[in-house]
Amino acid sequence: MKVLISKKTGIYYYYNDKLKQDFHCKEGFIKKEDLSGDVSTAKSNTNREFIVFNANKYDLTKKYKRGPQIITPKDLGYVLARAGINKNSFIVEAGGGSGAASIFFASFVKKVHTYEIKSDHCNIIKKNIEYMNIDNIELFNADLSEKIDDESNIDLLFLDMPEPCCVLENKLEGVKKGAYIVCYVPSISQIQEITKLISQRNDYYLEEISEVILRHWRVWEKVARPEHRKDIDHTAFLVFIRKV
Amino acid sequence: MKVLISKKTGIYYYYNDKLKQDFHCKEGFIKKEDLSGDVSTAKSNTNREFIVFNANKYDLTKKYKRGPQIITPKDLGYVLARAGINKNSFIVEAGGGSGAASIFFASFVKKVHTYEIKSDHCNIIKKNIEYMNIDNIELFNADLSEKIDDESNIDLLFLDMPEPCCVLENKLEGVKKGAYIVCYVPSISQIQEITKLISQRNDYYLEEISEVILRHWRVWEKVARPEHRKDIDHTAFLVFIRKV
Amino acid sequence: MKVLISKKTGIYYYYNDKLKQDFHCKEGFIKKEDLSGDVSTAKSNTNREFIVFNANKYDLTKKYKRGPQIITPKDLGYVLARAGINKNSFIVEAGGGSGAASIFFASFVKKVHTYEIKSDHCNIIKKNIEYMNIDNIELFNADLSEKIDDESNIDLLFLDMPEPCCVLENKLEGVKKGAYIVCYVPSISQIQEITKLISQRNDYYLEEISEVILRHWRVWEKVARPEHRKDIDHTAFLVFIRKV
Amino acid sequence: MKVLISKKTGIYYYYNDKLKQDFHCKEGFIKKEDLSGDVSTAKSNTNREFIVFNANKYDLTKKYKRGPQIITPKDLGYVLARAGINKNSFIVEAGGGSGAASIFFASFVKKVHTYEIKSDHCNIIKKNIEYMNIDNIELFNADLSEKIDDESNIDLLFLDMPEPCCVLENKLEGVKKGAYIVCYVPSISQIQEITKLISQRNDYYLEEISEVILRHWRVWEKVARPEHRKDIDHTAFLVFIRKV
Repeated sequence: MKVLISKKTGIYYYYNDKLKQDFHCKEGFIKKEDLSGDVSTAKSNTNREFIVFNANKYDLTKKYKRGPQIITPKDLGYVLARAGINKNSFIVEAGGGSGAASIFFASFVKKVHTYEIKSDHCNIIKKNIEYMNIDNIELFNADLSEKIDDESNIDLLFLDMPEPCCVLENKLEGVKKGAYIVCYVPSISQIQEITKLISQRNDYYLEEISEVILRHWRVWEKVARPEHRKDIDHTAFLVFIRKV
Repeated sequence: MKVLISKKTGIYYYYNDKLKQDFHCKEGFIKKEDLSGDVSTAKSNTNREFIVFNANKYDLTKKYKRGPQIITPKDLGYVLARAGINKNSFIVEAGGGSGAASIFFASFVKKVHTYEIKSDHCNIIKKNIEYMNIDNIELFNADLSEKIDDESNIDLLFLDMPEPCCVLENKLEGVKKGAYIVCYVPSISQIQEITKLISQRNDYYLEEISEVILRHWRVWEKVARPEHRKDIDHTAFLVFIRKV
Repeated sequence: MKVLISKKTGIYYYYNDKLKQDFHCKEGFIKKEDLSGDVSTAKSNTNREFIVFNANKYDLTKKYKRGPQIITPKDLGYVLARAGINKNSFIVEAGGGSGAASIFFASFVKKVHTYEIKSDHCNIIKKNIEYMNIDNIELFNADLSEKIDDESNIDLLFLDMPEPCCVLENKLEGVKKGAYIVCYVPSISQIQEITKLISQRNDYYLEEISEVILRHWRVWEKVARPEHRKDIDHTAFLVFIRKV
Repeated sequence: MKVLISKKTGIYYYYNDKLKQDFHCKEGFIKKEDLSGDVSTAKSNTNREFIVFNANKYDLTKKYKRGPQIITPKDLGYVLARAGINKNSFIVEAGGGSGAASIFFASFVKKVHTYEIKSDHCNIIKKNIEYMNIDNIELFNADLSEKIDDESNIDLLFLDMPEPCCVLENKLEGVKKGAYIVCYVPSISQIQEITKLISQRNDYYLEEISEVILRHWRVWEKVARPEHRKDIDHTAFLVFIRKV
């Protein structure tokens, strides 16, 4: 896969170089010969210039098969950095969604078990895993709240589901002592349900509730200001709970 | 290393269990017998209760030997997630600072080369690397702007230095095509210098300037509000540049 | 003027009750009889319910004749609250833009002098002043940087123009000692020009540079989260300078 | 009252010039002769320079007699700008707190009625009203939820109290149709109670829930960044309800 960025419009295009076809977009077309090998730039028939990159992992995520909403890098990155894990870690995740979180985690840790209750979502996840060429995710078409007892030695339990309390209500003996359960929830109301449950349990310690906000900036010669309309959009809150 | 969290004050204490000594803090002391083995809680002579965790990677960072300011997890996590890398990646970083970024990256990728111009900072970095038991960082007491030509096949070049342009002025042929150079700079003025330099070069593509903001929340039974005084502190801006 | 809010869609409509006509919108029509007098609600021919309000000052601003971009209430309110003025104050303002700032200030203070260099903008301002029925604004089709010496006893000088330094370069003896000159500028680069000028002058004291951010929330029975896509948009920075 | 700003430390001092005494502070002392009349600067015995301003309304608020926490200008300004009122408006407010909101509103509108249930707070409010020389506030040592029926023709009802629902539970027929009831509440939980009450009433329309965030910036020759540690602190949420 290659990324083509139009110098004029700044639009990103994605070109599957394995198909060995000409590239067509609304700004014109580029001959396949002009995109083969190690080129850095290319010109369309309309004389527009494009920067050409080999797609990296981040570029590739833009072409995921889409199903449920995808967790943003700002949130996934913070979880990875905050949860005290490393490349030897084992992560259990539910719900799988479109697989973005699973694939992200699997790129950096040893093993990921992903639970997704809906079979159509499972199909999307499978396709995205294949597309990203990842081999350390095991996908279960199942309800984690019923299967959590099957898991053990969990370094991070990541819950991206409408009702994380269904999982938290269990004993969670498979989660290592001191390890994190991270809930990703869009609404304060869900946090309230979680904190209520935690207040009744001695084996959970609520360590942090936070929100990661990303602000884009535009800085040129005579301009330096936050971007309009591309600005900060709320995604979700993160709740960091430790297993006692 | 163990983490002890006082249930009354919420204060975190760090206990080196290898020393096999009693634990003393301002809230009282705990006998070494009460902290050995796999305990989850402990009581002090003053009858205060403590939750006891085995320290994870994140806990351990709290006891880094301190030198220059340490980059926060929110920023490091976003760089990891945004820069399109994975556990097979090779990162070059300067300046090393206290080693926090190097150690973080090394926990998730294959190899890190760290350049630090000041020898006293190098000593701090060495101690922190040892303390965290990391074996895939190579540390150079040198000026990266002079040594960048020695490096090749770089998947991510991370610059946390007052004048990143000293490095950017070079050809940077060691950075893979399409890979990122990420500058971490506290001031808009520095971004302006960077964008000025980029505007004169055909081999850099400025992809994103952003700022990661972390907001902490307090949610209990009858309270749900942002934390006072623990709130958002500016750290730095991130500039994502791609090598053409 | 009346405001009609559709209970189904939440859309705001504006109805000029002086025209004594039926009301038509994409959700249906309402007979003029059903909107006359002191009604609180009304039903359309399509059976949709509407809440009916007499428009207040804030509602009315939504129907301004539009020209240049309009300063937002969050910024205007902060200036009013921060600049140490009251209903006896005299404000000089440039550029007038669409008149929104002038009209807002005039609603709360004694007198406003508005300078606007472009005559077509002046026409827009005039229409908006008439529409809002304001009688304490004097409008000058002139360049404030040339006319500032004609003004005296200024309690607040408000500059919403691309190059506020053109005004700041003058002596500004008409501004009362200790009173504020507030610059409203979208870009950090403009602030840099302002602070550079201030550093060369003994009669200006830079007291505050700030940015007002407004975050909208959605709170219902089971939902409590920041609004999507309606969220925070950057407008401008505010620079508070005091005349020594 | 005069404001003295140390050029070296940037600290603000307040000097009551009516007392005709020398001024003493930790940076030295200044003779009363050097502070009389229309001076712009003064030197202390320690040779430090001070900028001298006549205090404006905003400066004066810094010397309020303190009791309950004071609402910030960013919030007060936004309420004034958003609530569709003007200098002819009548505002009813509870609880009075330290009087800061009452005094602010009274500086810009026709009349303010302030209700405060605690008599010691009333004493603080009285002193601050006198100190600010305001004559259009009427203060009631009473519970607004019991007295609201005595009020009529209200253009803005401002509620800064732990349980605004005690007032909202009433009919509020004294609030003009289409006018705002603004609740100032620190916690999402309080908003939830308010929205629950509103959902059971046909005579309230919930128009906006928002949060005003103020970010301070530091911009000098080679520096342009958000201020450290002076940054954004949460104060409260604003709920804008309209009387149907």
